[in-house]
Amino acid sequence: MDEPALRQLVDDLRAGVVGPDDAVARLRRLPFVDLGFARVDHHRALRQRAGEAVYAPGKTPHQCAEIVAELLAEPGETPVLLTRADPQQVAAVLGTAPQGEVTATGQHATVCWRAAPQRTGRVVVVTAGTADLPVADESLAVLRAFGFCPELVADCGVAGVHRLLASADTLAGADAVVVVAGMEGALASLVAGITPAPVVAVPVSTGYGAALDGITALLAMHASCAAGLTVVGIDNGFGAACAIARMLP
Amino acid sequence: MDEPALRQLVDDLRAGVVGPDDAVARLRRLPFVDLGFARVDHHRALRQRAGEAVYAPGKTPHQCAEIVAELLAEPGETPVLLTRADPQQVAAVLGTAPQGEVTATGQHATVCWRAAPQRTGRVVVVTAGTADLPVADESLAVLRAFGFCPELVADCGVAGVHRLLASADTLAGADAVVVVAGMEGALASLVAGITPAPVVAVPVSTGYGAALDGITALLAMHASCAAGLTVVGIDNGFGAACAIARMLP
Amino acid sequence: MDEPALRQLVDDLRAGVVGPDDAVARLRRLPFVDLGFARVDHHRALRQRAGEAVYAPGKTPHQCAEIVAELLAEPGETPVLLTRADPQQVAAVLGTAPQGEVTATGQHATVCWRAAPQRTGRVVVVTAGTADLPVADESLAVLRAFGFCPELVADCGVAGVHRLLASADTLAGADAVVVVAGMEGALASLVAGITPAPVVAVPVSTGYGAALDGITALLAMHASCAAGLTVVGIDNGFGAACAIARMLP
Amino acid sequence: MDEPALRQLVDDLRAGVVGPDDAVARLRRLPFVDLGFARVDHHRALRQRAGEAVYAPGKTPHQCAEIVAELLAEPGETPVLLTRADPQQVAAVLGTAPQGEVTATGQHATVCWRAAPQRTGRVVVVTAGTADLPVADESLAVLRAFGFCPELVADCGVAGVHRLLASADTLAGADAVVVVAGMEGALASLVAGITPAPVVAVPVSTGYGAALDGITALLAMHASCAAGLTVVGIDNGFGAACAIARMLP
Amino acid sequence: MDEPALRQLVDDLRAGVVGPDDAVARLRRLPFVDLGFARVDHHRALRQRAGEAVYAPGKTPHQCAEIVAELLAEPGETPVLLTRADPQQVAAVLGTAPQGEVTATGQHATVCWRAAPQRTGRVVVVTAGTADLPVADESLAVLRAFGFCPELVADCGVAGVHRLLASADTLAGADAVVVVAGMEGALASLVAGITPAPVVAVPVSTGYGAALDGITALLAMHASCAAGLTVVGIDNGFGAACAIARMLP
Amino acid sequence: MDEPALRQLVDDLRAGVVGPDDAVARLRRLPFVDLGFARVDHHRALRQRAGEAVYAPGKTPHQCAEIVAELLAEPGETPVLLTRADPQQVAAVLGTAPQGEVTATGQHATVCWRAAPQRTGRVVVVTAGTADLPVADESLAVLRAFGFCPELVADCGVAGVHRLLASADTLAGADAVVVVAGMEGALASLVAGITPAPVVAVPVSTGYGAALDGITALLAMHASCAAGLTVVGIDNGFGAACAIARMLP
Amino acid sequence: MDEPALRQLVDDLRAGVVGPDDAVARLRRLPFVDLGFARVDHHRALRQRAGEAVYAPGKTPHQCAEIVAELLAEPGETPVLLTRADPQQVAAVLGTAPQGEVTATGQHATVCWRAAPQRTGRVVVVTAGTADLPVADESLAVLRAFGFCPELVADCGVAGVHRLLASADTLAGADAVVVVAGMEGALASLVAGITPAPVVAVPVSTGYGAALDGITALLAMHASCAAGLTVVGIDNGFGAACAIARMLP
Amino acid sequence: MDEPALRQLVDDLRAGVVGPDDAVARLRRLPFVDLGFARVDHHRALRQRAGEAVYAPGKTPHQCAEIVAELLAEPGETPVLLTRADPQQVAAVLGTAPQGEVTATGQHATVCWRAAPQRTGRVVVVTAGTADLPVADESLAVLRAFGFCPELVADCGVAGVHRLLASADTLAGADAVVVVAGMEGALASLVAGITPAPVVAVPVSTGYGAALDGITALLAMHASCAAGLTVVGIDNGFGAACAIARMLP
Repeated sequence: MDEPALRQLVDDLRAGVVGPDDAVARLRRLPFVDLGFARVDHHRALRQRAGEAVYAPGKTPHQCAEIVAELLAEPGETPVLLTRADPQQVAAVLGTAPQGEVTATGQHATVCWRAAPQRTGRVVVVTAGTADLPVADESLAVLRAFGFCPELVADCGVAGVHRLLASADTLAGADAVVVVAGMEGALASLVAGITPAPVVAVPVSTGYGAALDGITALLAMHASCAAGLTVVGIDNGFGAACAIARMLP
Repeated sequence: MDEPALRQLVDDLRAGVVGPDDAVARLRRLPFVDLGFARVDHHRALRQRAGEAVYAPGKTPHQCAEIVAELLAEPGETPVLLTRADPQQVAAVLGTAPQGEVTATGQHATVCWRAAPQRTGRVVVVTAGTADLPVADESLAVLRAFGFCPELVADCGVAGVHRLLASADTLAGADAVVVVAGMEGALASLVAGITPAPVVAVPVSTGYGAALDGITALLAMHASCAAGLTVVGIDNGFGAACAIARMLP
Repeated sequence: MDEPALRQLVDDLRAGVVGPDDAVARLRRLPFVDLGFARVDHHRALRQRAGEAVYAPGKTPHQCAEIVAELLAEPGETPVLLTRADPQQVAAVLGTAPQGEVTATGQHATVCWRAAPQRTGRVVVVTAGTADLPVADESLAVLRAFGFCPELVADCGVAGVHRLLASADTLAGADAVVVVAGMEGALASLVAGITPAPVVAVPVSTGYGAALDGITALLAMHASCAAGLTVVGIDNGFGAACAIARMLP
Repeated sequence: MDEPALRQLVDDLRAGVVGPDDAVARLRRLPFVDLGFARVDHHRALRQRAGEAVYAPGKTPHQCAEIVAELLAEPGETPVLLTRADPQQVAAVLGTAPQGEVTATGQHATVCWRAAPQRTGRVVVVTAGTADLPVADESLAVLRAFGFCPELVADCGVAGVHRLLASADTLAGADAVVVVAGMEGALASLVAGITPAPVVAVPVSTGYGAALDGITALLAMHASCAAGLTVVGIDNGFGAACAIARMLP
Repeated sequence: MDEPALRQLVDDLRAGVVGPDDAVARLRRLPFVDLGFARVDHHRALRQRAGEAVYAPGKTPHQCAEIVAELLAEPGETPVLLTRADPQQVAAVLGTAPQGEVTATGQHATVCWRAAPQRTGRVVVVTAGTADLPVADESLAVLRAFGFCPELVADCGVAGVHRLLASADTLAGADAVVVVAGMEGALASLVAGITPAPVVAVPVSTGYGAALDGITALLAMHASCAAGLTVVGIDNGFGAACAIARMLP
Repeated sequence: MDEPALRQLVDDLRAGVVGPDDAVARLRRLPFVDLGFARVDHHRALRQRAGEAVYAPGKTPHQCAEIVAELLAEPGETPVLLTRADPQQVAAVLGTAPQGEVTATGQHATVCWRAAPQRTGRVVVVTAGTADLPVADESLAVLRAFGFCPELVADCGVAGVHRLLASADTLAGADAVVVVAGMEGALASLVAGITPAPVVAVPVSTGYGAALDGITALLAMHASCAAGLTVVGIDNGFGAACAIARMLP
Repeated sequence: MDEPALRQLVDDLRAGVVGPDDAVARLRRLPFVDLGFARVDHHRALRQRAGEAVYAPGKTPHQCAEIVAELLAEPGETPVLLTRADPQQVAAVLGTAPQGEVTATGQHATVCWRAAPQRTGRVVVVTAGTADLPVADESLAVLRAFGFCPELVADCGVAGVHRLLASADTLAGADAVVVVAGMEGALASLVAGITPAPVVAVPVSTGYGAALDGITALLAMHASCAAGLTVVGIDNGFGAACAIARMLP
Repeated sequence: MDEPALRQLVDDLRAGVVGPDDAVARLRRLPFVDLGFARVDHHRALRQRAGEAVYAPGKTPHQCAEIVAELLAEPGETPVLLTRADPQQVAAVLGTAPQGEVTATGQHATVCWRAAPQRTGRVVVVTAGTADLPVADESLAVLRAFGFCPELVADCGVAGVHRLLASADTLAGADAVVVVAGMEGALASLVAGITPAPVVAVPVSTGYGAALDGITALLAMHASCAAGLTVVGIDNGFGAACAIARMLP
């Protein structure tokens, strides 16, 4: 029940078309209906920024295609995303919605339809090593879907700190930075010390020695000595892009 | 070596006052000097937002007082903060810098000098329960030091979701939200579903059953089904405030 | 806004006392107000079973006394509980609400006001050893507050299985069983194999060797080979009693 | 030795058919025999509710078929279940016991023979996302085998809380609720706050970021701020159904 | 119901003193009564070796004294032990049972009454360092209570392997060896490679670096490359002594 | 250098065949040579009980065959074992040493040559469920290789405690018991309460819910309330058999 | 900008070829350029010892070949290494750079080009068992690439300590020792007690029981009672060799 | 039995003073006696570098004093150390050995007697923050005892990387570096990228957020992307100094 429907009910009540008992009954249900309405409003606002995303793992290619088709059927201008799709899933969604833009993210792919109009925020995605690229690629694809033109600064692992410092001006001038780093995750602390911009760290499940599939990087990022660093889940390049989309206009 | 000193060296070189060997020797050292200079620049920019913070635990009251006095001695307008100070430490710093504003944060206190000029961003700090208040209080004190007028929405634990929904408009209209929650940390997911604003989640080391001193909340917040949620370390109300200060103008 | 108030608004609308714009405005707010109302309804229903409970740790004695007084001020017949209170907190609440019944639960105490009318469900609380008694005592106190007359079967650790089997008829005839066990928590599996009744297991943070403060018992109870066993958090005797209150009429 | 056999022994003793030494010898063995008898009694009572379940993993298709055939050979009316069976195992059991009803549960299947007569308890199974469906399907299949007509309320993740609230009446009116949720498992706390019915939470080994194969959800559910929530093991949809079968008439 | 009582019932039945219905009723109860009886038998056998032990932590001094007095009141010749008692508890038990022999075990003490007659098995207790002595002392005290004359070989940490090898003959000639070791627990593997006797390893909660309160030693002992090594819980010197008492005549 | 060689050196010295400097040089090397000698002695003693075992995983079939052949080439009467061999490894060793006795242990196999003469100790291997059988089978095969005639008591999970109690006499009369149990591992505590014999518990990496690949069972067995229970590593049926071989004559 | 270029700029400045503004602009950039220069210097120094290593996992065969070709194209005499390469990667790099020397390291291989001139340091690599050989092989291959002639002392597990002691002189006379050990990792402590040389321990992800994929060995090595032992990451034979290359001339 | 005694035995044998049987008997014991002798040799060599260290925690002040006195009584020139001593322990040892040099290391102290003659290796100890100083102080005190003149470079946390770079030349020119860092431990990776010298990282149990008492830093240091970094246990400043003493002449 949206606002016009609510107003109609009020008018019907006043006109006697609806009796008081019926009105109370319908109004008692209103919280949830209207809550839906209010929620939808918030969600629409949210969607204007982040769009609709479908997480592919665990869904059949057919299900992926159906959900994407349904989301695109609903008139709108917000992006629709399919993340972590395997080749079969990609083929299926492109069969029904061929205009999707595919970005490879390691073994998987991100597919985007109706990318948002361009936004002006300067977003930099920094990676520690080549093994972090699939996660960075997901982040970049989602940022582009949200209208950003993110810049990639790759292979800046702290063991050769000069590689990072060579991009210090880029980092210092960014509006937001995503740091994608596995192993010990130390790059996030370093970047947060260089830039005053918001820094979102993505721990990556790479590395060996004692990397524990990304848990070490996640813990290290949270124990960071750099103030104001925030962290998303392991390998969650998508989440980091969504966080940036919340932060920047 | 700052820019004028660098220009002086160049002039001295051209004038023959400094010989080429000496110049090379001094310029070889320049990277670090200048790097310091460049860093300071970034730090100053950073500081204009986040100020200087002293983490009290592990320092003697005397050390706290000395460091704070030194920071205040340097002319500037950026805030100076002492966090997690015990009563002896608070007494000592107020003895040498009596204009500090003290905010109790559970057993400890945050002290602020030279709070930043007011900023317009609407920041909301939401807590799940009363046990989360000390961490929220730290976040609020640091946000105020940075110039914000944060609003506290307390005691919104998800077991009584209507308490949170009653503040849904406040959350939906915020420019940034800090969610402070121990136990299962579920509040962060919920809030991120209600507001399009950036949401920084602070896991809190409270709760029992299987709360594991905040680790359960930290993990749960990272496993969250809400897109774009970011997380700081356990009990790190200070860090959440710094993250907000990076995000908002 | 409860149902009579809602009905009044409908009547005022029909009578023209309230104009349609005002009504829509108030009704737009209704979701949350009514949601509160609806929640309260559920909560009241819930409360008829579980009452209101205040978790004392982290609250001052004064705060405990104030919250309890407020809960008792609201007319009603449902129990009010203060759990895990220390002696100062107990003294404070008894100062303002002296009719509370105090049950020692190890170092702490549970205080109950307005215990519910007696319920007929036969509830048995089984413990593995004497170290589990404080947690069992909390469960017993809360069960009594909810109107049950629970029976305690103590000291039935599986290392002397005959002690448990001697009470097999009691367990088989129960309507619900709470198993309170630290160390390896094996008692829960055993009890669930003896009785067809619902069994709620409470892992206890006692034991040594590799008990890990109750985590071993919690994990073991979840890995149990006994079908249909459910588990609450470590030391959460209160939660087990609430679970029973949900299950039995 | 069942009761008639026991009575026969008593009669034989009185009639002198059995001498006192023999009787004592046999009666000394009685505890175990009779204990078996008594156990069987309890087990029968239990079985009238929960039936016999065979856990397929680790058994050959032939073993599965043999065990199921043996269970069905024994006259009775209680359900027989095969859980988590792979296609070979399903084919084998249907070869010898073709009347089994097969329910797909993700990659595996649950097969049921002799479903119990219908029970009246209203059981609701709520899931957080599509990835939770295999576990929910197992729970639903086992509940149906026990005679329930469970209702599925799918895809109610807390990031869009309005989806859950739209089913609030269903939850509030249920006799028991199973909450199946991976990731951060927050849905369980929310549902327990909405319904006064018993709530059994099933953590699911899905999710990424920091889901740790369901351990995060399990811990979060145990750290829940909702009173009276109980938890079963990770992915244990079968266990949750058995727990419900213990609770409801 | 012990065997004579059972025989009496059989006689009464035959004599007509007890009717068949009464006999069946009493015999139906027999499993548990007799089970108790049977258990007691086993327990008596057990006790002839291991005696009765009271774990002091969590009990009041008065409770300790009462339990010990009760155990000693029961005529018998098996040892009675109080373990991990603090000074108040020791004073209380000696007040009512002054003949107890007190062995200091670090901060606590083991008290023994009615030590078993001497046994011939040669038991050696080896420790890695001085910090392991309290746990070794507990093991020694309990072994002595069981009738052994254990030999202590102290301070044989593997970092100076010659210290251990100097006692190689002692170890090779032992009937059983208890290895008490914290830190990395490597001593257990070494000893098991030297002696053909049963080796019971006790991980100790000492050490730093990454000792994790004994968990590292426990894990290391279980990952040991030495075949046939067995392990008891962290700091469980009592348990190791009981294990030896089970092994040796 | 063995004892005759040592005696020869002494004779040579006395006879002047070897000069004092040479003797000192050779004797300085003696510790290690003799230590080897001494070790071999101990090892031989050990081997008379436990034999030589080759752990197959990580070795090529050819390597397995070579090592086994070498061990069998050395004249002796002690058993030679190959454990956890895959079919290729089994085929290779039987190719060169065809008299090996193969026991299937789940996916792998144990192969034994030169089984020890029969020993009289009554060893019982108890399992909790069918999934524990591969580990029990390894234990049984190794026990048989050491000369024991172990008895298997299968499927005694604590959820149906009567199944275990039916074998109580067998357990009470055993000289040593191996308990093989996954899931929550509770069976070990129970068995240790029934028998005075040494009990060696083997945690098994089976189960679900929260079994954590055997870690839960391992921890639970160490937190056991049963005194004198010892534990070997996860799935280490071989180790349990070796432990028994150390304990019994 | 390297030193000659810097000197050229100084000369140009003095000669008036470059104006002061341009010089300042270029010099302001110098920190990062020169930092690169300075870094390169350090790196060159480092490289003279450790060379350039490419970690193959996660790279395509083509990428591996390209990177190796590029490294070899740059004139120099320092070694170039490809580590943990699979057969496809090995084939690809040998296609473009056929002079590489291939060392099998279990399933993978290490390939080395331009091995460094021989160094005199005596390096010993000790392993506990055959399963540790792949990691030891990687360490040996990298040590040889750095110019060392390492000696392998294999199969010295502590359960047969005489095997280690037989090589005690070798260890005592080494300039550096790498200890490669899985399972409980105890060998590291033992070796560190025998030799005064630096000892680098490599925990290996082998073993069962409670080896936790090398975590147990890593923790045990850090909890070691041997003073001055250092540790690298799990399975990191490469890292241990690099550490030795840093230590020895 | 040292070398002269061995030679005496040889002479006695040749002279007939000792018969062959007696000689064999004594020589059979020789391995251990001589082994001790041989060990002592190695240990003396070791001691010439690392001295004797007494770990104070868990020892009484009297015990500390006795052990230190005994070590000093033995003529020698190698250092004697008491580590982590509390004030009572310090007072006691200075009472009997007043020439000890006391270095405060946070709440504890390191005491050194007979510091080694000066060594020429340039050792740098780098710390991330002030909270790391107690651990660094222990490392410095032990390095001084071993004859080094270590340089402290304090407060170089990576969040302000310019602070570290300002000391880059110092690090690049060091012969060995100890990195003492808590929180995320990232400093170790950075330093290892700057210097070609051996780098020993000491994780420190400071920090909050997710520092887990140093475990996060330990894991991060092992997952480091910097080749050739080695790590010692948490807070083990003593161990790092011993490792350096093994590495440098």
